[in-house]
Amino acid sequence: STTSSSGGSKPTLLFRQFFEKDSSTYTYLLADVGHPDRPALLVDPVDKTVDRDLALVKDLGLKLIYAINTHVHADHVTGTGLLKGKTPGVKSIISKASNSKADCFVEHGDTINFGNLFLEVRSTPGHTLGCVTYVTGDGPNLPQPRMAFTGDALLIRGCGRTDFQVPFNYDIPPARILSIQAVVFKDFKFTRWIFTLPKDTLVYPAHDYKGFTVSTVGEEMLYNPRLTKDEEGFKNIMQNLNLPYPKMIDIAVPANMVCGLQDVTEKASVVAS
Amino acid sequence: STTSSSGGSKPTLLFRQFFEKDSSTYTYLLADVGHPDRPALLVDPVDKTVDRDLALVKDLGLKLIYAINTHVHADHVTGTGLLKGKTPGVKSIISKASNSKADCFVEHGDTINFGNLFLEVRSTPGHTLGCVTYVTGDGPNLPQPRMAFTGDALLIRGCGRTDFQVPFNYDIPPARILSIQAVVFKDFKFTRWIFTLPKDTLVYPAHDYKGFTVSTVGEEMLYNPRLTKDEEGFKNIMQNLNLPYPKMIDIAVPANMVCGLQDVTEKASVVAS
Ligand SMILES: [Fe+2]
Ligand SMILES: [Fe+2]
Repeated sequence: STTSSSGGSKPTLLFRQFFEKDSSTYTYLLADVGHPDRPALLVDPVDKTVDRDLALVKDLGLKLIYAINTHVHADHVTGTGLLKGKTPGVKSIISKASNSKADCFVEHGDTINFGNLFLEVRSTPGHTLGCVTYVTGDGPNLPQPRMAFTGDALLIRGCGRTDFQVPFNYDIPPARILSIQAVVFKDFKFTRWIFTLPKDTLVYPAHDYKGFTVSTVGEEMLYNPRLTKDEEGFKNIMQNLNLPYPKMIDIAVPANMVCGLQDVTEKASVVAS
Repeated sequence: STTSSSGGSKPTLLFRQFFEKDSSTYTYLLADVGHPDRPALLVDPVDKTVDRDLALVKDLGLKLIYAINTHVHADHVTGTGLLKGKTPGVKSIISKASNSKADCFVEHGDTINFGNLFLEVRSTPGHTLGCVTYVTGDGPNLPQPRMAFTGDALLIRGCGRTDFQVPFNYDIPPARILSIQAVVFKDFKFTRWIFTLPKDTLVYPAHDYKGFTVSTVGEEMLYNPRLTKDEEGFKNIMQNLNLPYPKMIDIAVPANMVCGLQDVTEKASVVAS
């Protein structure tokens, strides 16, 4: 849905949220329908639902230009590679800090332009060191309230686990994991940057396991049981979750390290070499 | 999210969409946060997720006044009865044509007021004879585009099955079902009333099985494979779906005929008497 605009201009953002049941993943479609090309991007596409996403892109007369990930996912295979194969011209985007493969790399402070609209990139480490949050910009034709796509850095009333520092600790000894986690806990303050956004900013996470679809910065500042803690409190919670080994990690991580390109020109095994 | 308003006034609608995975049901929360009481209503609540819904109502400081159903569901037990038990003062609402039990009955043309906002009630038979669509009104403080809660009368690129005319043909001979279906197909034109709404009206269905969360009237007018047909075409599609017996129907229908009150003061068996 389009929301009201800042600065009196008419917002031209078309926005859709999609859900993938098996991994409880949300994918987001954003497009500038005020621009003649109707350029669009997908945030956190899933391999299984690429055809659904592309069917809607076609129905709405959009031109997909970017497939973007918030981080290297460990619970599902990204749809990025399939999207590139099925829609020539689509460029994949991920953070430089993710250490994985893509067409374009972004870092804190960058912007991603589509038509006359743009997303801002913010580093929000925690779940992984390479996690970023994409936030709709503040400017003409952009919606108010703003929208933050937080990946697993901030989930509704929660956040992603920190014990699998994909890709750094995937396939490496547990001792090394602990040293990476130490950096994560130290850098946790950057994730709390989300809380400096206006309180009415809409929070759209990469997952929800209870059926919530959206929250706001103000709500999470009050009720998020993890991110409202200080560094020590956060660390205590995250180190005592005793979570099982992620069931998809051995398939998802090698594939996602090459942005799901396994189905296009590359094999997932490339990453192992 | 709040959307832009009609008539230049500021929209005061707080809106949330929830998903229940087992039955792929969407529940909707609407509240007038411009009114001092912050009165709220839930559309199509599910029994399993009542505690989640009430937790958010509490977090957001809302006062739940109505639990509303679009129709007698055959695939899940409504949360209405539990909501009434847990939140004194909540009134249940369903259509008069549904032939089931509730505190208030509505029919085509009625309005449901909450604070200074209101929903319009429209008869949209097809999936069941008692199906209604609730549409946000057109007036001060109400959002633009408008929002239509279509139940199973209009699903994204589809519609609910017509072979179980709950409650009429539940437990009755197949011959009688066919005569009720004849009425449904004749009355199908009323469901197409949805297509007289402005094209940018947001369509929020009771279910989606592919992970879509919203559509628009304009989109469905172009791409809905069932509701774009004439009466004869619609009938041909709906009579040849060969769907299995709904797995939850024997539990859901008796419970929903008393608006899920089975857990409060009544037993589901009342309906059998
Ligand atoms: Fe993740
Ligand atoms: Fe139904």
